Amino acid sequence: MKFEKTVKWLDSVLEPWKFDDVSNNGVQIERCGDDVKTVAFAVDASVKSIRSAVDAGAQMLVVHHGISWGGGIKRLTGGQYNAVKAAMDGNLALYASHLPLDANAKVGNNVHLAREFALKNLKPAFSYHGNILGFTGTLESVVKLPGGGLADRVEFRGALAAIGKKKALKIGVCSGGAGEFAVEAKALGCDLYVTGEASWADVIAAENCGAAMVCLGHYETEVFGVRALAGAMKRELGIKTVDLT
Amino acid sequence: MKFEKTVKWLDSVLEPWKFDDVSNNGVQIERCGDDVKTVAFAVDASVKSIRSAVDAGAQMLVVHHGISWGGGIKRLTGGQYNAVKAAMDGNLALYASHLPLDANAKVGNNVHLAREFALKNLKPAFSYHGNILGFTGTLESVVKLPGGGLADRVEFRGALAAIGKKKALKIGVCSGGAGEFAVEAKALGCDLYVTGEASWADVIAAENCGAAMVCLGHYETEVFGVRALAGAMKRELGIKTVDLT
Amino acid sequence: MKFEKTVKWLDSVLEPWKFDDVSNNGVQIERCGDDVKTVAFAVDASVKSIRSAVDAGAQMLVVHHGISWGGGIKRLTGGQYNAVKAAMDGNLALYASHLPLDANAKVGNNVHLAREFALKNLKPAFSYHGNILGFTGTLESVVKLPGGGLADRVEFRGALAAIGKKKALKIGVCSGGAGEFAVEAKALGCDLYVTGEASWADVIAAENCGAAMVCLGHYETEVFGVRALAGAMKRELGIKTVDLT
Amino acid sequence: MKFEKTVKWLDSVLEPWKFDDVSNNGVQIERCGDDVKTVAFAVDASVKSIRSAVDAGAQMLVVHHGISWGGGIKRLTGGQYNAVKAAMDGNLALYASHLPLDANAKVGNNVHLAREFALKNLKPAFSYHGNILGFTGTLESVVKLPGGGLADRVEFRGALAAIGKKKALKIGVCSGGAGEFAVEAKALGCDLYVTGEASWADVIAAENCGAAMVCLGHYETEVFGVRALAGAMKRELGIKTVDLT
Amino acid sequence: MKFEKTVKWLDSVLEPWKFDDVSNNGVQIERCGDDVKTVAFAVDASVKSIRSAVDAGAQMLVVHHGISWGGGIKRLTGGQYNAVKAAMDGNLALYASHLPLDANAKVGNNVHLAREFALKNLKPAFSYHGNILGFTGTLESVVKLPGGGLADRVEFRGALAAIGKKKALKIGVCSGGAGEFAVEAKALGCDLYVTGEASWADVIAAENCGAAMVCLGHYETEVFGVRALAGAMKRELGIKTVDLT
Amino acid sequence: MKFEKTVKWLDSVLEPWKFDDVSNNGVQIERCGDDVKTVAFAVDASVKSIRSAVDAGAQMLVVHHGISWGGGIKRLTGGQYNAVKAAMDGNLALYASHLPLDANAKVGNNVHLAREFALKNLKPAFSYHGNILGFTGTLESVVKLPGGGLADRVEFRGALAAIGKKKALKIGVCSGGAGEFAVEAKALGCDLYVTGEASWADVIAAENCGAAMVCLGHYETEVFGVRALAGAMKRELGIKTVDLT
Repeated sequence: MKFEKTVKWLDSVLEPWKFDDVSNNGVQIERCGDDVKTVAFAVDASVKSIRSAVDAGAQMLVVHHGISWGGGIKRLTGGQYNAVKAAMDGNLALYASHLPLDANAKVGNNVHLAREFALKNLKPAFSYHGNILGFTGTLESVVKLPGGGLADRVEFRGALAAIGKKKALKIGVCSGGAGEFAVEAKALGCDLYVTGEASWADVIAAENCGAAMVCLGHYETEVFGVRALAGAMKRELGIKTVDLT
Repeated sequence: MKFEKTVKWLDSVLEPWKFDDVSNNGVQIERCGDDVKTVAFAVDASVKSIRSAVDAGAQMLVVHHGISWGGGIKRLTGGQYNAVKAAMDGNLALYASHLPLDANAKVGNNVHLAREFALKNLKPAFSYHGNILGFTGTLESVVKLPGGGLADRVEFRGALAAIGKKKALKIGVCSGGAGEFAVEAKALGCDLYVTGEASWADVIAAENCGAAMVCLGHYETEVFGVRALAGAMKRELGIKTVDLT
Repeated sequence: MKFEKTVKWLDSVLEPWKFDDVSNNGVQIERCGDDVKTVAFAVDASVKSIRSAVDAGAQMLVVHHGISWGGGIKRLTGGQYNAVKAAMDGNLALYASHLPLDANAKVGNNVHLAREFALKNLKPAFSYHGNILGFTGTLESVVKLPGGGLADRVEFRGALAAIGKKKALKIGVCSGGAGEFAVEAKALGCDLYVTGEASWADVIAAENCGAAMVCLGHYETEVFGVRALAGAMKRELGIKTVDLT
Repeated sequence: MKFEKTVKWLDSVLEPWKFDDVSNNGVQIERCGDDVKTVAFAVDASVKSIRSAVDAGAQMLVVHHGISWGGGIKRLTGGQYNAVKAAMDGNLALYASHLPLDANAKVGNNVHLAREFALKNLKPAFSYHGNILGFTGTLESVVKLPGGGLADRVEFRGALAAIGKKKALKIGVCSGGAGEFAVEAKALGCDLYVTGEASWADVIAAENCGAAMVCLGHYETEVFGVRALAGAMKRELGIKTVDLT
Repeated sequence: MKFEKTVKWLDSVLEPWKFDDVSNNGVQIERCGDDVKTVAFAVDASVKSIRSAVDAGAQMLVVHHGISWGGGIKRLTGGQYNAVKAAMDGNLALYASHLPLDANAKVGNNVHLAREFALKNLKPAFSYHGNILGFTGTLESVVKLPGGGLADRVEFRGALAAIGKKKALKIGVCSGGAGEFAVEAKALGCDLYVTGEASWADVIAAENCGAAMVCLGHYETEVFGVRALAGAMKRELGIKTVDLT
Repeated sequence: MKFEKTVKWLDSVLEPWKFDDVSNNGVQIERCGDDVKTVAFAVDASVKSIRSAVDAGAQMLVVHHGISWGGGIKRLTGGQYNAVKAAMDGNLALYASHLPLDANAKVGNNVHLAREFALKNLKPAFSYHGNILGFTGTLESVVKLPGGGLADRVEFRGALAAIGKKKALKIGVCSGGAGEFAVEAKALGCDLYVTGEASWADVIAAENCGAAMVCLGHYETEVFGVRALAGAMKRELGIKTVDLT
């Protein structure tokens, strides 16, 4: 598989040009040579996941959190040196997709997070710089909750218990560090808002307006889109993929 | 005590004009009437702490996290309506001090956080928009650690254990949501960096450069300055204070 | 009437999302309780008009000039404390509409200001940040001028006299503090430009290019849209309205 | 007199480099030839005052309000064409001094405005972008008010009457369009704030906090510094000056 | 011919409103009197070309590089005084068109620059702030190169020779100071990129990615659109034009 | 020699913290291992000079133009990939110094450029974002010009000839792409301004005010400081240096 063809497929699926994102989405590190046999997938472009991708024989690593944000990399020192050095020594290309992978209707983190909780009647919600990222949906009955996975986590079960025994709950979901949307979820009538990570300021803001929020981990809520993207690439391009999540 | 005199004392101790802060420090809500008999102190200007202050008979609430940040309050709706309504109904004035209370040499969150760990040889460190906020210091021997308090927390003990049995450790401390300084702490030679709250991005950045960080709670690390300020006001102004932390 | 329904009606008439406005249009202060029986209307959210609205038994005050502009309210002190306190003590909600109420084709300040002068052949003119706010029109004959109202004001009569006895005059109108458009009115061929308030810099700019301008009062030129909006709400929602202009 | 020497004298008196001003202070239009025999002084660089200066035989016009503000002159069309054309046809140089002329301790608009009202105990007040522009002072007894001039204006007398018969009044003064400082004057304990021009928003803001303000004309309050500067130049450089105020 | 009609024709051909340009395109200097008999055309609004236009009896000068950029003209001193004085003394209006004249499909600098090299299969390329300015095209055979003109310049012949004897070359062209596009031309598969002027930083950037670039002069590459626009005005308006390139 | 010690020496000589520079001065690429035996010096961090430094056995390359400007490196692709890859493969650290190396009083590009022309009475001139970069000086007699070097270049000799046979010329110098200062040099009374590179806009601006400017090459005028810095490091640190200019 040509490197350029792989990149074009990722761009056509994720459509990064539609997003006003602080992540510099797309190819963040090139490689020498145009052939791609194995593509690894991870949430973060950490030194650890870069080394794992190289060890797994990958020529390319696709991540949700890349190494270049905003203006870019000011200095290749410390952790940023380590990450780039690991990629270059392993001749590994890096492709990043932040908001496009959160919001994607088919392989996105948020649509798959909603499925973790078996939500019905999904409606797009929670807008950020012109893009709608997450969803609201209905949890039809607490007893029907899927076993295993995030829906089984103590925090989540505790939050449901705190709400009480309504027959149908309205739940808002947005993966990662999206605690700021708890207030909007409340305004949309949600009984509970599920995200990955919230700052203390988000927590107080939610408390002040009586919004219920549960945080299930930044990383833990963002593996779903990464895995779905890997699956889609394997099916559609027939290329070997490695899941590092 | 006159309201104006209380405010002047707070300003003279905290010197808000020296800080480039996103918090609009100082008086954020006025009150009717100029007399102040009781001053309450809390970390957050939450609806809950505002109501507690009113219930405690306070005319004024001093907080670390106020209700007006950056450009200010766009709409008095939801949680912001609830907070302002509670203060106005209770005729309670609100005074906020964010970075000035973190960095203060005598009553600051960070100098008192350093004391929690019995650090010696304190040196100012961790600069934000022109102000140095935190400290590095030496933890002379693990066995001498003060019992109780944050130094006894499982996470902190675990982090020390992970470092091993050096005789003297260099520790960096900065209260609240200051995970971004873990990388700088490593560059300054710290064995461990202690803060309140870190985003997932901070965690990965620390991991990539091998920096050890432990997060002990945004709120938990910011009660110390609030208490110290209350103590100083009681001593110096002879006014009744109420600690809501 | 539900509060939410009243707000939705105002939004649907005024369409605030179409305007790039320094005013934070929409609900600026909430209230406790969802019922709305009486809605008051005023040009300014002054302490005086807020108190009048409460005295008139209103649950909601609709104004052209609200209390939250740009980044918002930095401190609830002085006049801003007084205004918010008065609203909260009276449990009065505040809804503001600045440029949307100037430019509205049916209930706008400017279309009704043009009617005050019986202008014909109205054409939209005077663009501000992508929205056209005012109008040019033809004053067919000086003798046909409506009696009473702004058209009878000495300044206006004097300006007409200074122009002389043309059969048809081209007049530009834009309510409020819009003296900056006098130059554009001249370029559009207007014989006279009518506004509410002009700064000294506007006056010199107009004089330098020979533009004739008359200022009839910021407040005086902005009562018309406020009244028209009140009339429309009464007709369409069947709710009691109070005109405080 | 050399043109360059005249400019250096103006710069040394007014020190434009000390001000963060939206006016591009200093020489705004050059001239051909280096000799300066007569210098005219006016508040505004209007077409009218430029022509008057040329008619009076001046080679240079010094003004408070020039023709270049902020980024500069975008297009030499309309009134800006007329002003520049008049200056160039008359071979007249233009020197502007905005905030430096307001704030100057010896020849400033504001110190001389304070003298108009015979204020005692002048203290600098009203800061704008790092410069203190105006003053507060004491009006010792109403009967001692100087006759003639602005102190005799009906609005001013009316404002004094509204305050009542205190023996000593605290007055704040700032010339031109400085209505925004009325609120600060109130906070400084002033009984009355005197300025030239206030926007409707300034009026409402003052009213909401109970601040008394009187506006005596943008132009009328700014002739004093212009005249004082002309007098100083005549004395110190021995050059012919023409007062166009 | 009326001045206004000439300006409208230029605007309708060049459509300046479609461009986000640092040049303040359109009329930059007015004139007295509305008649236009002769229009001069030049690349730059230099003192020299303004004087030549006046000497040629023109009432209007159309240029690619005007005198007003960004915020505008801060001071009419030095070279800017000389240029405006020359125009005003000669009663010459100035009309500028920067990016609109580069990008125009019929009379643009870049389409005519592409014709200089007899390029086939022109495709728009090289985007700047939302507008596509230049072209890529095919140079079918080196021997078919047109004699005379820029295609005969030593630098250009040398660049072709360096590439070697391919039958068909892909060439990117963008007139003026557009060296920054050399890197993009390489990414588009161009064998050579032709522009007017490149900074040293552009040269190093091109060298680092192996992009071949040749610079044929900022002025020399921008005469073509100016001449084409003059020709079009003569044909369509039947007005006398003078080519000062 | 320790890497850290070498960097500290460079920082202490060049004082990058004193400059508001678009270059991210200091260490731009780290290396593995702390020992530095040989330091190479070049004007540009091009792929070519990086490879030459590695071939010369250097562990560190010091340059005037680094690879990280403004926000930083957005993507490690194309030429930026090639440069970073070459440095990382060669385990070469990169240190950049832009304005600090231009302006340095001892080892700066501009003071040594002034020496190339044997200028006397050097005075700092040409300010950029708060730092004075270049110099004016006196060329006492044309016949005393040093032979060889830039002073012998045809363009420079031609510029002197165009000025004529004054006994003493005032010359302004500023290395690199500093054509914008030609106008200021004229205002300072310079007969000639010498720089490396000027844009076409700079040339027209200089021509319009009659300023004489000669451009001797961006690279050619910036080798002097680089060489002087290499010499100083060799003398003061006793380390092997390699001059790649």
